[in-house]
Amino acid sequence: MAKVNHHYIKLTGNYLFQEIEKKVSEFKKHSPSSELINLGIGDISQPLSPTIVSALESASREMGSADTFKGYGPSQGYLFLREAIAENDYKGLPISPDEIFISDGAKNDIANLQEIFDIDNKVAMPDPTYPVYIDTNVMAGRTRPLLKTGGYGGILYLPCEEKNQFIPQLPNRSCDLIYLCSPNNPTGVAMDKKNLEKWVNYARENKAVILFDGAYEAYIRSPDCPRSIYEIEGATEVAIEIRSFSKTAGFTGLRCSYTVVPKALKLLEGRQWISLHDLWKRRHDTKFNGVSYPVQKAAAAIYSPKGKKEVKSLIDSYLKEAKHLLQTLTKGGFKAYGGLDAPYLWVKAPAEATSWQFFDYLLEKNQIISVPGIGFGAAGDGFVRLSAFGHPSALAEAAKRLIQL
Amino acid sequence: MAKVNHHYIKLTGNYLFQEIEKKVSEFKKHSPSSELINLGIGDISQPLSPTIVSALESASREMGSADTFKGYGPSQGYLFLREAIAENDYKGLPISPDEIFISDGAKNDIANLQEIFDIDNKVAMPDPTYPVYIDTNVMAGRTRPLLKTGGYGGILYLPCEEKNQFIPQLPNRSCDLIYLCSPNNPTGVAMDKKNLEKWVNYARENKAVILFDGAYEAYIRSPDCPRSIYEIEGATEVAIEIRSFSKTAGFTGLRCSYTVVPKALKLLEGRQWISLHDLWKRRHDTKFNGVSYPVQKAAAAIYSPKGKKEVKSLIDSYLKEAKHLLQTLTKGGFKAYGGLDAPYLWVKAPAEATSWQFFDYLLEKNQIISVPGIGFGAAGDGFVRLSAFGHPSALAEAAKRLIQL
Repeated sequence: MAKVNHHYIKLTGNYLFQEIEKKVSEFKKHSPSSELINLGIGDISQPLSPTIVSALESASREMGSADTFKGYGPSQGYLFLREAIAENDYKGLPISPDEIFISDGAKNDIANLQEIFDIDNKVAMPDPTYPVYIDTNVMAGRTRPLLKTGGYGGILYLPCEEKNQFIPQLPNRSCDLIYLCSPNNPTGVAMDKKNLEKWVNYARENKAVILFDGAYEAYIRSPDCPRSIYEIEGATEVAIEIRSFSKTAGFTGLRCSYTVVPKALKLLEGRQWISLHDLWKRRHDTKFNGVSYPVQKAAAAIYSPKGKKEVKSLIDSYLKEAKHLLQTLTKGGFKAYGGLDAPYLWVKAPAEATSWQFFDYLLEKNQIISVPGIGFGAAGDGFVRLSAFGHPSALAEAAKRLIQL
Repeated sequence: MAKVNHHYIKLTGNYLFQEIEKKVSEFKKHSPSSELINLGIGDISQPLSPTIVSALESASREMGSADTFKGYGPSQGYLFLREAIAENDYKGLPISPDEIFISDGAKNDIANLQEIFDIDNKVAMPDPTYPVYIDTNVMAGRTRPLLKTGGYGGILYLPCEEKNQFIPQLPNRSCDLIYLCSPNNPTGVAMDKKNLEKWVNYARENKAVILFDGAYEAYIRSPDCPRSIYEIEGATEVAIEIRSFSKTAGFTGLRCSYTVVPKALKLLEGRQWISLHDLWKRRHDTKFNGVSYPVQKAAAAIYSPKGKKEVKSLIDSYLKEAKHLLQTLTKGGFKAYGGLDAPYLWVKAPAEATSWQFFDYLLEKNQIISVPGIGFGAAGDGFVRLSAFGHPSALAEAAKRLIQL
């Protein structure tokens, strides 16, 4: 008799967005004339830039001609793209094209990376956090059942709160596998060099591994916040970095990302040093067949002089809206965080209200859709996440409504 | 201290294609003027057809305009593609669009599906077999170390040999998770209805689950060989079917495939019936973000009247070459199998030679590159796999050389 992976049964339902959807449609029923503004979505609203579209079209035509047609590509990704990434995103840093793996999504990579580690590693992650970190560890059997506190037994949660400026602090218990996300989703706060150094040193001392989620790195503007963890001395020995073209170049519908697994990153198994680069390569070769060729060509176009300009202007426009929203909220008396180095704002509910109460308030009074912070973990209660990915005109209207609060 | 997934250490090296590469380059060194023909590759040689390229280009343009731009799509795939698949590939069969999951590769799906099953399921698979079936079960910890016989302890191998016409036979020990591949890679032999019925009945009686790899289904021409396992009564209760656009429409470089997980497929966990459809959906939602929009539009174009014609003509041309090669080999006195319902031929080494001896012989005497059968499992020794995916002119030349053997 076949048996299911019983760890899946421990997962809580994916009810957050269903619940939001339900509340929104109820609101629409009793206020059909209201014009809702969705600041809940984490998806981009701007189309691909002309240089990227042109690369995509031209590669599509290549696929139709016997001379230029591409079949299976290297599972690690085409060298032209890995070289462009190394030369541009890692200029001056000790990362070679060989250490870069092209993938069809940062979510996929962050979900799959845990698989090359043993089940009995002790996992630490920020709270609030991107739910994929926790869910994939539950599925793998690395946790005990859900606790009444809202977290899973066996996971070391690192609370990110006002009192620590939403920066995960070193734990007083040991941990082996550490998820860090900077700029953070959902808080929108980026880690500065000093804090990141603390974690790299901790990992080096404890032979722990950091899974560094840099999906929003292109939004960093504060000069003391590193864009890459490899700006920290010794990080190549302890850290894997995951990045995405989704939020930097509008690739959410096109699907392309990359992960850096340095060759210096090795773990002792018995008396043998095992290269995590080799393990990840083996996983890639066995379970993946590379990213669509036209999509890789489109990603490479981001690094052309024109592509760079277009992408920068896109990110600048999202950041402008985020900053404006932050200023409006602060002027309106709210405690709001993030929004300077990230497209997300983390807004505190007034008067000790819960996430859901604040969500309801924003929906009813301002016709604004947010995401309740509790959806990202217990420490997220009392906050909502607002996204600046909406259309500029919608964001301007949202700011107007919030000022009238 | 972080620890690696020690099951990865059990994997044997990926040496098959490296060894082939080494032998080929040595041959080139001592015979630089020889013109080698590669019948080893499993990759297609023909470009995408015009209707597919046109859909790809047009969707690329959509991505560049604010009105038509697509961000995150449904992780299960766009309904337009799932409907086209249900209406065309499953016409008359009890499969709905809701039961179809679009993915970026049959390899990925066949690799990931084992994950929704418990570690202690007993796994059965054909020998010879597509190496991904075994390697992913090794990585998951479902096997014991490698045995001297060349297989892994804990796996139930189903030998496919001349004496059983290369059809996997029902085991005399019980098993829970059964990999079947028809038409088979590497043997090129398709299962007929009677044999497939035996397996479906076995699975129903034993509450086992069949993972049915139909990546080459479009090549089936024998009327008594089902293209889908769901042509067998009751199969929706026991089988998951995986298909690919790679070998049917030339998508190896574009990346698109699909998997059917029927809603009728449920397993008992404790006292609860667990839907495998729900588990796979949960995995998809958590670890995957859907296939590139332009690629899904390109896949949908296959089902247009023009697309259907183009794709059929492509497959017919590969099959014509396969048949011609089979006839040539048979005329030359070889025992050759497959090639009628698949693009692969499974050729027996003369005079009890091993796979590698036969490989060397074909390379030295005919300047033809093959794949030694031992690379697909212990029962594959004494055979080589030849592929009809090469360019028609190369295949014609190969046939000429083989006749002169």
